[in-house]
Amino acid sequence: MTAKIHRVVFQPDGRTLQVPDGQTLLEASRAAGLHLQAPCGGKGTCGGCRVIIPQDPPSPSEACRRELTGEELRRHMRLACQVRVHRDMRVVVPEETRLGDQKILTEGTGRDVPLDPNVRRASVHLPPPTVADQRADADRLLDTLAEKDLPDLTIDVKVLRELPEKLRTHDFHVSAVVIGNDVVQLDPPTAGTACYGVAFDIGTTTLVAYLVDLTTGKTVAVASRGNPQAAYGDDVIARIEFCGRTKDGARVLHDLVLDAMNEMVAEACHRAAIKPSAVYEATVVGNTTMNHLVLKLPVEPIARAPFVAASASAHSVLAKELGLKIQPRGRVYTAPLVASFVGADTVGVILATGMHESRRLRMAVDIGTNGEIVLGMRERLLACSTAAGPAFEGARIRYGMRAATGAIDCVDLDGDRLRLHTIDEAPAVGLCGTGLIDAVAALVGAGVIGGSGLMQSAEQLAARRPALARRITGADGDIGFVLAAKGETGTGHPILLTQRDVREVQLAKGAMAAGMATLLDEFGAKLSDIDEILLAGAFGNFIRPERALGIGLLPRVPIEKVKFIGNAAGAGARMLLVNRGLRRVADDVARGVEHVELSQRPDFQTRFADAMFFPG
Amino acid sequence: MTAKIHRVVFQPDGRTLQVPDGQTLLEASRAAGLHLQAPCGGKGTCGGCRVIIPQDPPSPSEACRRELTGEELRRHMRLACQVRVHRDMRVVVPEETRLGDQKILTEGTGRDVPLDPNVRRASVHLPPPTVADQRADADRLLDTLAEKDLPDLTIDVKVLRELPEKLRTHDFHVSAVVIGNDVVQLDPPTAGTACYGVAFDIGTTTLVAYLVDLTTGKTVAVASRGNPQAAYGDDVIARIEFCGRTKDGARVLHDLVLDAMNEMVAEACHRAAIKPSAVYEATVVGNTTMNHLVLKLPVEPIARAPFVAASASAHSVLAKELGLKIQPRGRVYTAPLVASFVGADTVGVILATGMHESRRLRMAVDIGTNGEIVLGMRERLLACSTAAGPAFEGARIRYGMRAATGAIDCVDLDGDRLRLHTIDEAPAVGLCGTGLIDAVAALVGAGVIGGSGLMQSAEQLAARRPALARRITGADGDIGFVLAAKGETGTGHPILLTQRDVREVQLAKGAMAAGMATLLDEFGAKLSDIDEILLAGAFGNFIRPERALGIGLLPRVPIEKVKFIGNAAGAGARMLLVNRGLRRVADDVARGVEHVELSQRPDFQTRFADAMFFPG
Repeated sequence: MTAKIHRVVFQPDGRTLQVPDGQTLLEASRAAGLHLQAPCGGKGTCGGCRVIIPQDPPSPSEACRRELTGEELRRHMRLACQVRVHRDMRVVVPEETRLGDQKILTEGTGRDVPLDPNVRRASVHLPPPTVADQRADADRLLDTLAEKDLPDLTIDVKVLRELPEKLRTHDFHVSAVVIGNDVVQLDPPTAGTACYGVAFDIGTTTLVAYLVDLTTGKTVAVASRGNPQAAYGDDVIARIEFCGRTKDGARVLHDLVLDAMNEMVAEACHRAAIKPSAVYEATVVGNTTMNHLVLKLPVEPIARAPFVAASASAHSVLAKELGLKIQPRGRVYTAPLVASFVGADTVGVILATGMHESRRLRMAVDIGTNGEIVLGMRERLLACSTAAGPAFEGARIRYGMRAATGAIDCVDLDGDRLRLHTIDEAPAVGLCGTGLIDAVAALVGAGVIGGSGLMQSAEQLAARRPALARRITGADGDIGFVLAAKGETGTGHPILLTQRDVREVQLAKGAMAAGMATLLDEFGAKLSDIDEILLAGAFGNFIRPERALGIGLLPRVPIEKVKFIGNAAGAGARMLLVNRGLRRVADDVARGVEHVELSQRPDFQTRFADAMFFPG
Repeated sequence: MTAKIHRVVFQPDGRTLQVPDGQTLLEASRAAGLHLQAPCGGKGTCGGCRVIIPQDPPSPSEACRRELTGEELRRHMRLACQVRVHRDMRVVVPEETRLGDQKILTEGTGRDVPLDPNVRRASVHLPPPTVADQRADADRLLDTLAEKDLPDLTIDVKVLRELPEKLRTHDFHVSAVVIGNDVVQLDPPTAGTACYGVAFDIGTTTLVAYLVDLTTGKTVAVASRGNPQAAYGDDVIARIEFCGRTKDGARVLHDLVLDAMNEMVAEACHRAAIKPSAVYEATVVGNTTMNHLVLKLPVEPIARAPFVAASASAHSVLAKELGLKIQPRGRVYTAPLVASFVGADTVGVILATGMHESRRLRMAVDIGTNGEIVLGMRERLLACSTAAGPAFEGARIRYGMRAATGAIDCVDLDGDRLRLHTIDEAPAVGLCGTGLIDAVAALVGAGVIGGSGLMQSAEQLAARRPALARRITGADGDIGFVLAAKGETGTGHPILLTQRDVREVQLAKGAMAAGMATLLDEFGAKLSDIDEILLAGAFGNFIRPERALGIGLLPRVPIEKVKFIGNAAGAGARMLLVNRGLRRVADDVARGVEHVELSQRPDFQTRFADAMFFPG
């Protein structure tokens, strides 16, 4: 069952990944959000992605021999892009190889877009004025910029106030920074051309910031954080309720997320050895609630029927106005939204996957507390949001927890033998989302859980699977299956999968599956018409697809049609940063996507009930 | 010589006007900047323009009998629009009839433009959201405004923050204020539709503010002031030099003019019984230096060769940013400029006269310290600025003074008899611009001053004009002509027109005339091709055209071709306030006008020297 998957442990932090056979270590690390230095993009020419393989390192490739010294090779150092995974292995990532925090998925499958950022810098030499050429300073500058392929600009009056002196101090030679169509800053000609942007993926749970060099389009540093708003509720509804009952609650949540964004900017800038004042623009994708909290827009109507956002449009706001500590004249672009529960993150996913341009029918799925699903192709895109509930994030599960140290993240049943894996290989303390899916899938496969979700009693199992029957036990008026006995855990109590947990999984996967089925029906397509299912986001990336198919969380498609696309929302944010033309595309996408409101569909409840069963 | 002109004295302030025979008192008062209540526009239907004619009032017209009570008629009250001037008269203007300060020319010959202000207000009822219509609040509002003929608007994020609550408090019924393409404010539906704007004419010497009701396009109050910057120099060059040598000098001048603008807004609003917060937009015309000081743009390069402005474009700035105390979300629009010495006031004159659309060849002249001249028609417009010098404003003239009480403003020579008129009929204390022109014209006509400008000696005149010869006297190594003897003045010393004064007039009128000749030449037109000469501005309005023609200040055209157009720059500012489409026209005009830099013309000095002679 796990034949084609190998377990790779990255040191020093012990992150364990399921890596398909044949993938390179660099690809594996990217898919997992381990962000390694790789300016060459994995061609073996930059020597950035150096890692150490302590035991039985593969013989060095030609690229390794070229890029690494003999001493380094002797220390078992290799380039991650050159090592294909064909067995379980342990890998040490030296500090200098790391770009970002490796607990959070930061890489996404972005498409390449032409470098045409919204922030541009031009060093220009103006013809000095003469009595025969008395053009105003502003016209002189704009005319010259127009000749440099920067036409139709305007200059804000604040910049104009500095213009005459700056021109005359530097002999009519200046470096101009242009954001959108506005000249926002004038520097001495010696200022160079450094110019950065930061793309934010603002999730309910997780924040990621990508620092991008806008002269090359390359990501030069990544930082990430848990969303500190989590202290006020796990999901957006809880946070909106907090805003509703607390004076200045929205302000509190705004300040929290901005503080975290500022920390990430500072961290990423420090790592790239630049000043935050060299960052001229930020792009933001996030769900509607996160978008509104960042913009200081009211959120309460989002959570009250009929669930209406204040604004679904893209906005471009002064960084200073929001309290984002980049260049004070910089701007923050927030991507447009589709609906109250289908946000800019979904728009980012569509841009990153190119679904809006594709002739192939694809379905993108972001599994979280709210599962967002997009189905379609160039001609038509449908999206819905479905309340999967927090089961996959560890909530409402008896021994549930987030994907952190000691969480059981893999469960395999080999005959009667149960094999567990925990994050950081620490003693088990609970069950995270992937472990939960694994456990349910394994027990369904073994007949411990029936098609209706009913867990067999010890008596029912005793004849058929005596070893498993012994793991069935009572639990506070419920029954449960012992995954780890009292003596095998780090907590002093056993870890069980209970009947109620199974019901929670059924509700969650039922909602997701019913959403997918509804979109397919609305589109007028059959399951077999789907060319690809794209799993986006941090959680999706760690799921084992055969298990998700096994419990019916994903519809029954050939497993090779399931693709991991990583943090596609973040990739969309980066694309919007490096190519301003995409912003108009984003507007079109946001307005063009048909939002399917599941609660309005008479057939949704039936589908939901049907989808709660496990596949035969 | 004065057969067709009557002298009308307006009380209580004693302003004396030269009024052509047959003009109504209302027309005369307008031309002179006496702003009377006349909401009906002079049709005799509103009873606003009531004045008292103490001596021999004309018999009351039908309109007077209808609008005035018997008691009022007995008090010699009449409607100014109903009284035609056929003799000299004294008129008392009651306080309630006045709209503005009457020392400054506030009315101008504006063309009628369709009412299409940049500020609009719409009361809208939005369809409340339902689960079947989950449009974001912003889209809901914008869609509804688009149906109300307000398409393609945007909503600033600051307004969006208030939107959800305002919509829900008032049951999705709101009154929206739109400036340009931006929704800037949301009021309760009960807020009504009151909406005002203010048009400013910011002159070097004089400031005028017109408060306009943007729902009707009517001017409801006018206020004016001397420009308090005058304390720092009479002309723009002196003020720019002050900015150059004084730290924060430009800030001082900005604050002074803004303080005065705020006073005028407060005064006009008080008179119209509205709050300044009901004023949503201001338009500003002014010369380049005034424009830059209002916008806080640097002015020094304007005064240094090659005389370059910071910006010649129109700008729209938040009122708050400039310190203008209207509605805090209101805006200030500054009209575009042609060149460093041909400002937005000239653009205003062109818009007000419609020269840019006319098929007739016209020349507009604004005589001041800098004389601005525009020549042309629809196909082509030329403009120049010529340094006439301050002679006509009383400076550099031995007994020169501004047009204030006691200034000799009219001089006639009837045979050998000299007739003087002083402002307010007070004892003479000096000679103002119109009196100076009159005096020179009279003495040239009588042969006291020769064609070259040389004043005859007493000996040369003795045989021919003995009475005049007695008035020639020595004056500090110069000679002069006694206009008023020691015993006839209010100062205890005589008032003379000296030879040097005549030379100053020659320089001034030579510069103006050479400018006009150069423009005509550049245009390729002959003097006889000119259909009209338009005299703009306060000074031009008080000139007697035959005298200006007499000394060659204006070229020799038939006198009926000379028209007074009053404060055309201010009229342009009002047109820009009530019709936003004109702003694009203003941009086209400002860019389309060809600026003729006189100092660059090899023939200008020759023309200047030629034009200093007096016509034969």
